Amino acid sequence: MKIESVDFFCLSMPEVTTEGDGSQDALLVRVAGGNSVGWGECEASPLVSIAAFVCPMSHGACRPVGASVLGQTLDRPSDIARIAAQIELDSMDLLQAPHTWSGVEIALWDLLGKARSEPVWRLLGYDKIYPKIPYASQLFGDTPEETRQFAANARSSGFRAVKFGWGPIGKGSLQDDVDQFVAAREGLGPDAILLVDAGQIFGDNVDAAASRLPVLENVGATWLEEPFHTSALEAYGQLAGRSRKVKLAGGEGAHNFYMAQHLIDYGRVGYVQVDCGRIGGIGPAKRVAEYANARGVTFVNHTFTSHLALSASLQPYAGLSEHEICEYPFAPKPLARELTMNHLDRDAEGRVFPPAEPGLGISINFEAARKYLVDIEIKVKGETLFSSSNTF
Amino acid sequence: MKIESVDFFCLSMPEVTTEGDGSQDALLVRVAGGNSVGWGECEASPLVSIAAFVCPMSHGACRPVGASVLGQTLDRPSDIARIAAQIELDSMDLLQAPHTWSGVEIALWDLLGKARSEPVWRLLGYDKIYPKIPYASQLFGDTPEETRQFAANARSSGFRAVKFGWGPIGKGSLQDDVDQFVAAREGLGPDAILLVDAGQIFGDNVDAAASRLPVLENVGATWLEEPFHTSALEAYGQLAGRSRKVKLAGGEGAHNFYMAQHLIDYGRVGYVQVDCGRIGGIGPAKRVAEYANARGVTFVNHTFTSHLALSASLQPYAGLSEHEICEYPFAPKPLARELTMNHLDRDAEGRVFPPAEPGLGISINFEAARKYLVDIEIKVKGETLFSSSNTF
Repeated sequence: MKIESVDFFCLSMPEVTTEGDGSQDALLVRVAGGNSVGWGECEASPLVSIAAFVCPMSHGACRPVGASVLGQTLDRPSDIARIAAQIELDSMDLLQAPHTWSGVEIALWDLLGKARSEPVWRLLGYDKIYPKIPYASQLFGDTPEETRQFAANARSSGFRAVKFGWGPIGKGSLQDDVDQFVAAREGLGPDAILLVDAGQIFGDNVDAAASRLPVLENVGATWLEEPFHTSALEAYGQLAGRSRKVKLAGGEGAHNFYMAQHLIDYGRVGYVQVDCGRIGGIGPAKRVAEYANARGVTFVNHTFTSHLALSASLQPYAGLSEHEICEYPFAPKPLARELTMNHLDRDAEGRVFPPAEPGLGISINFEAARKYLVDIEIKVKGETLFSSSNTF
Repeated sequence: MKIESVDFFCLSMPEVTTEGDGSQDALLVRVAGGNSVGWGECEASPLVSIAAFVCPMSHGACRPVGASVLGQTLDRPSDIARIAAQIELDSMDLLQAPHTWSGVEIALWDLLGKARSEPVWRLLGYDKIYPKIPYASQLFGDTPEETRQFAANARSSGFRAVKFGWGPIGKGSLQDDVDQFVAAREGLGPDAILLVDAGQIFGDNVDAAASRLPVLENVGATWLEEPFHTSALEAYGQLAGRSRKVKLAGGEGAHNFYMAQHLIDYGRVGYVQVDCGRIGGIGPAKRVAEYANARGVTFVNHTFTSHLALSASLQPYAGLSEHEICEYPFAPKPLARELTMNHLDRDAEGRVFPPAEPGLGISINFEAARKYLVDIEIKVKGETLFSSSNTF
């Protein structure tokens, strides 16, 4: 089939705050071809990602993403890789391109799966899939007491693993962080998996991050996530060398395969976290999963938004039995929850499976989503390059 | 002073083609503070870079670049670094942010220099500056005969160094490339410096790039530039190990300090090429220059647009006498030439100097630039977030 159209839908909560909660807006992508449609989701900045799809060409290596997608043939997975390679050359100087392409790429997998009546994980070559243990992903409370309560709530909701991130960590004293980490463990009880996310707060300051390691080890944290800037590979490598039991995790900021590869090879992370909505979609995420698997590094999805994004993020490692943990948005904004008709709910044993239905197996709830639609209009030289639709 | 306003002006040639010529459009940035203004230039995709300045906040780590700039204090160089650090955290998930910020950052240096009546290179800590030997930077011809003629023209224009890039290289057979490289050398004569730019055409295929090394060595090419994707560090490192005399060059795609650092440390380039309009401006470029200098790697600017961008790109290594080569747009589009009142013309010995005048020492030619202005309008939720001015 030919890729006939690509449409973007920007959704947003009525109020967006400065908290580190990525579920406050969303950029849905719909692709159409043959007699079917596929859905994907870009992670981060809807307006800018739309602009990268429709912008005027600056020169041969700075073309809009749309120029490499519309009208292309889509019959098999290698077609998606071919389009990705074209974008890599033709949108080389367009920095936002990987974020835009990620959502389109996900939608193309969904479309291809539906056209072939196969789940995406089967198109990726997996014959059998394995359940994942979801960890409840949430922000630290403003106070240790609040964090303790959040931890207890997650436990009573049946989660065996919980991640706390961002909030006050690294912004106050070492003792402030110690109090937070201890409170998280107290709220969880002794057996649950505790994960900690520093949100890049230490820049590339290895000593500052290393000063948190003893207490993290004491409270039995499994990993310290994103202590540094995504590209601060030296700092990652040095901190990994100074940690005894706590492993490093990172990778959500990777916008191509290489960046994740380097976090493994040079940054020596124990867990590589990939956001399909940023790295260029499901294809490069699968490549990272294989690379990690061959090197004893655990692949983990990064997902903080809808269950459409969650389904996409589980596909790349659906068939890897030993990579069994998955990020699971615990308290997303209503937008992210209402966006889809169905959800990847936990089973009686607290596990989640990638859908067995064709494509990504997720249906959009148009009526609910419509409430959150945001009008966007982009004009260049008097010509309307993008005008949002107020309906699906 | 306070940063009172930041204005963007998109300019474009009437016709933009798919050739790899980055001078076909431009994004000028004007910042105002105190009673002065400063000018900068973003490299690549005006619409998308503007969108990243004005976009709605998605969450605390995905704020528009403008939120970290407007109203900030600017009294000394460290203020620029402080704003850069703020953007790194607050626009972490906004991929286009470094390209947007680069032009703003350059304009802030220009403004600060004018306010203090000092050239930017002095604000960077250099007391003495050294001339650079410009190389004529141009595209390969469609045929070897055309390339031979281009080379002869550059020589007769007095250039001692010439770079050919892009065009047909890597797209046909090995012999096609051999014919091009030989023609370039023939046109230049035996003594001129010959540089070759592959424009990332080999992806991460080390063998394909290595097959070009013998002829490049035979024709005495000084460097092979960008054989691979900017982030294909492994491929760079392997190719460097397989080359006897021809050094590797790369770095124009770096959008932060770390990426350039990794091309030095892991990619083993002999020349690190930094575009101030992409890497986050003059500050991080200076940091790369110091890093390269300490490791025996030569710093080179990457500039394919106006002499405003050229002045900005010379500042970071103006005081490093041993780093003496500079990229010099040889045949830019009229837009890029006409954009500035003054130009960094070559002296009688064929050398160029960074301006000694305050700031970047470059004046905009408003009357000429006005001809190329492009109307852009961005509306979100009915509110106009950006509307281009048709005057300066």
